[in-house]
Amino acid sequence: MKLAIVGPGLIGKSVALAAQRADAGVDIIEIDRGESLNDAADADLIVLAAPVAAILDILQNQSHALRTAVTVDTGSTKKQIVAAARAAGLERFVGGHPMAGGSTSGPAGARAQLFEGRPWFLVAHGALAEAVARVRQFVTMLGAHPVVLEDDGSEHDQVMAAVSHLPQVVATTLVIVAAQAAGQRLAWAGSGLRDTTRLAESSASMWEGVLATNAAELRPLLLELAGSLTELAGELDNPERIRELFAKANRYRALL
Amino acid sequence: MKLAIVGPGLIGKSVALAAQRADAGVDIIEIDRGESLNDAADADLIVLAAPVAAILDILQNQSHALRTAVTVDTGSTKKQIVAAARAAGLERFVGGHPMAGGSTSGPAGARAQLFEGRPWFLVAHGALAEAVARVRQFVTMLGAHPVVLEDDGSEHDQVMAAVSHLPQVVATTLVIVAAQAAGQRLAWAGSGLRDTTRLAESSASMWEGVLATNAAELRPLLLELAGSLTELAGELDNPERIRELFAKANRYRALL
Repeated sequence: MKLAIVGPGLIGKSVALAAQRADAGVDIIEIDRGESLNDAADADLIVLAAPVAAILDILQNQSHALRTAVTVDTGSTKKQIVAAARAAGLERFVGGHPMAGGSTSGPAGARAQLFEGRPWFLVAHGALAEAVARVRQFVTMLGAHPVVLEDDGSEHDQVMAAVSHLPQVVATTLVIVAAQAAGQRLAWAGSGLRDTTRLAESSASMWEGVLATNAAELRPLLLELAGSLTELAGELDNPERIRELFAKANRYRALL
Repeated sequence: MKLAIVGPGLIGKSVALAAQRADAGVDIIEIDRGESLNDAADADLIVLAAPVAAILDILQNQSHALRTAVTVDTGSTKKQIVAAARAAGLERFVGGHPMAGGSTSGPAGARAQLFEGRPWFLVAHGALAEAVARVRQFVTMLGAHPVVLEDDGSEHDQVMAAVSHLPQVVATTLVIVAAQAAGQRLAWAGSGLRDTTRLAESSASMWEGVLATNAAELRPLLLELAGSLTELAGELDNPERIRELFAKANRYRALL
């Protein structure tokens, strides 16, 4: 098997390690983003493991190499990426999103077990059935659970706006407000602030493309949260309202 | 040593266990909140380990027993509690706040190590020096690091609004918005949402008094955060702005 991986960061390197673990004979070509995909034209499978904006760029400009080989990406949003592939006429492209990685990035954190037991969403919409089957088999080989979605990626992006992108931007914004208010006394923080803002370690290079391509889904949730916090600011000394709010949050949290 | 503990929850039970570990001969009286403190009048030390509203109630209504014994509380806000003790003429009362416990509550989670190496803030303002020295020695015996504050608790409450109360109400509000938006797909959430909303497990019974007694400090921070989120909602597709925001958050997060 010849595997081409574009973008050797945390995800790309982990794909390489997981593939080698499953098949010691796999032939892997690593391609930096920005480089030509010509060497990947005879690959059995191409994995685009780059930030969302770079994936869009590759789909729009490197469509020749992607016409022959089955291709999957790892971007955190799917609707715009799948639409770009379809617009470029790439029927062997299957949109993909492994739920793995967290706030760390870079190849140093890569490991063969990264995808073990984790969902890997696949957007089958508009792709050849044989390409979907091949990608499904491949992510299973990496240890992931393929979750094949039948729509154009809209449901995935809506749900990710709520369960991934919203917590990310909240953690990022919260750590700034909390740290500026605490000033020299930030060291008084306990594990509560640390847990709540762990995602604030995430880097913009991964997130700028995610937020830009999912702005329409994320914006109303951000405004809803801002509205809830504003309303709460006027109810802090209303114990009945606080009890209702915490009881509701306790119930939802128990579902996680 | 005779130790009276009012409120046998996570903190109260852990105080009992830590005291017994340090001194096997300690004589401990556990008093439920709402019960009379008459039995505690000859104690060497009284610990008020009840929710903030209950501590305020005890200070206002049980001042007789608290006149003779050195007393410390464990409430998460300090200014109103210390002011209530001073208004009741309790010179042996020292305001206290152990930074321990997290989102769990109830005696089942109690352990002798709970305070080990954790700060225990003490508000000395208006208390007899000998009472402060006694409480300082006591919390050290429990394994905590006493941090004696010289003001009336204002700085403590300001900093806690930023590093503890703000993350709490954000986690509580966020889990509701995220779960309602994700609906039946909440199971697609990864560790990001789980970490960011861990505090949403906290119960209202502890928090309603904290929020009510620190509303003046917390309100402007909540409004500031709501303002930042609203502004961000309009900048999601502005990569330059996202890069600035994430870079700032990365720097503050590294200080934690």
